[in-house]
Amino acid sequence: MSFVSCLPEPGQRRPPAHHPGVFLAGEGRGRRAVEPGYNRRFRDTTVGGFMKTYRVGYLIGSLSSTSINRVLSKALVMLAPSDLEMIEIPISDLGLYSPDYDADYPPEARALKQRLASVDAVLFITPEYNRGLPGALKNAIDWASRPWGQNSFARKPAAMIGASPGKIGTAVAQQNLKSVLSFCNAPQMSAPEAYIQFTPGLFTDTGEVTDPTTAQFLTDYMDSFRAFICRVTAVLKDSGEIEAAA
Amino acid sequence: MSFVSCLPEPGQRRPPAHHPGVFLAGEGRGRRAVEPGYNRRFRDTTVGGFMKTYRVGYLIGSLSSTSINRVLSKALVMLAPSDLEMIEIPISDLGLYSPDYDADYPPEARALKQRLASVDAVLFITPEYNRGLPGALKNAIDWASRPWGQNSFARKPAAMIGASPGKIGTAVAQQNLKSVLSFCNAPQMSAPEAYIQFTPGLFTDTGEVTDPTTAQFLTDYMDSFRAFICRVTAVLKDSGEIEAAA
Repeated sequence: MSFVSCLPEPGQRRPPAHHPGVFLAGEGRGRRAVEPGYNRRFRDTTVGGFMKTYRVGYLIGSLSSTSINRVLSKALVMLAPSDLEMIEIPISDLGLYSPDYDADYPPEARALKQRLASVDAVLFITPEYNRGLPGALKNAIDWASRPWGQNSFARKPAAMIGASPGKIGTAVAQQNLKSVLSFCNAPQMSAPEAYIQFTPGLFTDTGEVTDPTTAQFLTDYMDSFRAFICRVTAVLKDSGEIEAAA
Repeated sequence: MSFVSCLPEPGQRRPPAHHPGVFLAGEGRGRRAVEPGYNRRFRDTTVGGFMKTYRVGYLIGSLSSTSINRVLSKALVMLAPSDLEMIEIPISDLGLYSPDYDADYPPEARALKQRLASVDAVLFITPEYNRGLPGALKNAIDWASRPWGQNSFARKPAAMIGASPGKIGTAVAQQNLKSVLSFCNAPQMSAPEAYIQFTPGLFTDTGEVTDPTTAQFLTDYMDSFRAFICRVTAVLKDSGEIEAAA
């Protein structure tokens, strides 16, 4: 097996402390402006002399043209480590799933499954609708999970995050999603959890994070997801399960 | 307020014991053939000299042309007390909900909300997809719950039932639905619960129930739902909340 270390070496995980973009993590710390794009430029999680880029497909649970979860997705793309290639997997063009299609999927559903097959991991960025998943997102998951024996999520590392104007920050929808992804046999990152309260001004429309604490949290979140993908992928490769699940 | 007793008087709830259609309730009892349509003909839940028919809209969570939950719906229509008018509310023609439509709903979504407004109660008959609600059903609920302030489920008595080939009989999907309907402020019948294992031959394609124990259970279920609707409606009428919620 090839060897890819899953954890950046000490000192490589963050820019040096004197860099002007540095801020401190933790709630209640002072707020400083975040230098746009600093993560992409200064972080380098390549280790062990072996560059491995992971392709992460992300699904946005809202179809709204003013979706705050789409704004959050922009922030996550900017803050992700440079070796995560972030690719949106659209869900808005899908019809409603019916088992009648299992024998012959329509083009939009085939495209969804092909896109999922082409990525190493899946990130769900979703609002909560009526204390559950948005129907549109669950519909996409239903399509992807079928036909029987061709579940696109099997052994695919997954994580979830969501933004809401309210304080519980999509926590109930995420609990729902955990149940669904568990059945779909997707290894899920269980920590850190991310329930984002989308307060006015916290993000710009283009996804810049104005609050350093939040920016640090989201940066750590994406770093953790990268490490999770790396661990799951290494284990699966070692056991030959990636090939078996493909 | 007008008075409608919610419980049939003793002796009116079941046909007389010597009637050939009678069977015994409870698991493990002997099985006898059920006379087709006997419930409609012999049960009469009209009481107190005041006939009240309740309109029950039912949503079938599966869009499959061979849906076992559609078969179950046929059984429930046949076994329902004569004063429940059962009306299917279709969900298959809806597009995917987006908040962008809140200002101007498309015709299919307006029709959904009009149908829900025209019924006294809602019955969900649904499969479980990936340990959750089918996306198509959740999508219909999302449409119905919006726009903000025009939630079609507010104060609408609701119940749920589901059939599955497996033994847990949609229990997880129903738990999901309970969470959603609770947020939607629909009073829910919490007992009896109904998790139906759809074993081969248990129902004919037209919804006749071949097992007397199951037929009795479903009959009791629909009787209980009628009583629940009556209780909730009486309470809401008494407090003026039906008018307030309308």
